[in-house]
Amino acid sequence: MANHHALETLVQALRVLPGVGVKSAQRMAFHLLQHDRAAAQRLSAALLHAVNRVGHCQCCNTFTEEAVCPTCSDTRRDRALLCVVETPADQDALERTGAYQGLFFVLMGKLSPLDGVGPKDIGIKALFDRVDALAPDGQTEVREVILATNFTAEGETTAHVITQGLKDRGIRITRLARGVPVGSELEYVDLGTIAHALVDRR
Amino acid sequence: MANHHALETLVQALRVLPGVGVKSAQRMAFHLLQHDRAAAQRLSAALLHAVNRVGHCQCCNTFTEEAVCPTCSDTRRDRALLCVVETPADQDALERTGAYQGLFFVLMGKLSPLDGVGPKDIGIKALFDRVDALAPDGQTEVREVILATNFTAEGETTAHVITQGLKDRGIRITRLARGVPVGSELEYVDLGTIAHALVDRR
Repeated sequence: MANHHALETLVQALRVLPGVGVKSAQRMAFHLLQHDRAAAQRLSAALLHAVNRVGHCQCCNTFTEEAVCPTCSDTRRDRALLCVVETPADQDALERTGAYQGLFFVLMGKLSPLDGVGPKDIGIKALFDRVDALAPDGQTEVREVILATNFTAEGETTAHVITQGLKDRGIRITRLARGVPVGSELEYVDLGTIAHALVDRR
Repeated sequence: MANHHALETLVQALRVLPGVGVKSAQRMAFHLLQHDRAAAQRLSAALLHAVNRVGHCQCCNTFTEEAVCPTCSDTRRDRALLCVVETPADQDALERTGAYQGLFFVLMGKLSPLDGVGPKDIGIKALFDRVDALAPDGQTEVREVILATNFTAEGETTAHVITQGLKDRGIRITRLARGVPVGSELEYVDLGTIAHALVDRR
C-alpha cells in the first residue's frame, strides 16, 4: 500500500499489538476503513481515554482509575490473605471461582532473565512493601501470602524469588496446589503433573 | 477486569478488529497499558488520522488521501489495460511482480451471497462506469479488462458476474492463468490445479 501515507502509518501503528504481523495489520486497517469507521473512531477514543485515565492501584498494583482499586477498598474481604498473581487476567480467573475472599497483589509480569525482565521490572519491591505495611493497630496485616504465579519456568522462578525475599518475616507462604485437573483422565495428563499429584496426595 | 471502566471499554473496542477475541483483546490492552503507552497514543492518533483523511480514488476505488490515487495519475502507465482485484493487498501483490504496467480497479471486496454481500455492496457498478468512461478523444480508453479476483468460490463468482456485465462492449475480458505454481512439484499440487494446467497448456 505504498503512497498512502495515513494508511501506511495506521498499518505500522497496528503492528505494535502483540501477535499482529504486517498481513494482519493490513487486514485490520482494511476492515476498519472499509467496513467500520465508527469502530475505528471508538477504538481511537478508548485508547486515548485508557492511556490518560488508567493507573496502578497503590495497594495491589493492578490497573485502576482510582488511587485504590475497588477490590482493595472492599471491607468485606479478608485482609490477612494476600494472593500474588502475574496479571489482571489471572486475578480474574481466581475471582471467577468464587473460592477466594482475600486480597490480591498483581505483579504485572513475571521474572524472565532471558527477556531482561528482573525483579526491578515487575512489582516485587512493591509487593514486599505491601506485605510489610502496618494496619492501624501497628501490626502487619498480612498473615499468609498465596503464590499464584503460573506453573511455568518463569512463574516458578518468580514464586521462588518472592519466597526467598519474604522469609524470616513469620508469614505463612503457600503455593497453589499442583495436581490433576478436574474432569481429566490420567492417561492424558502429563507425567510431571501426575508426579506432583502423587507427592501432594491427601 | 470488572470495575475498570476505561480498560473494559478499551478491551471491547479492540474486539472489533478481525480475528481478535476477548482473550487477545485483554492481552493487547495489557501490553499497551503496561509496556507501551506511547504506542497506544500513536495508534489512537493514526486511527483518527486515517478515518479523517483516507477516502476512495475516483478512478480505481482504492484507498487514497487524494481525489485520484498516485497509480491512476501516473501517465507512464498503459491506460488501455484495467486489472480488477478484490483488495489493495491484491493490487500490491501484482505490483510487486513488476510484470504489469496497466491500471487497476479495486473492488474493495468480493461477492458473497452467504454473507449478504451483493453487487451493490462492492464496487461493481463503479467498475462498469469506469470501463465506459470516455478518454479526451471521445473513445473508451479501456481495451482489456483483466480479472484478477481470487481463485476461490467467491472470487470466481465475482469474476463471472463482471464478465456478464461487461459483455457486448467489444472489450477483451481475460482472467489470470490458472496453473502449477512456480517451484512446486506436481506430486504435491492439488488435482484441480493440474487439470486446469492441462487444459490451459501452451
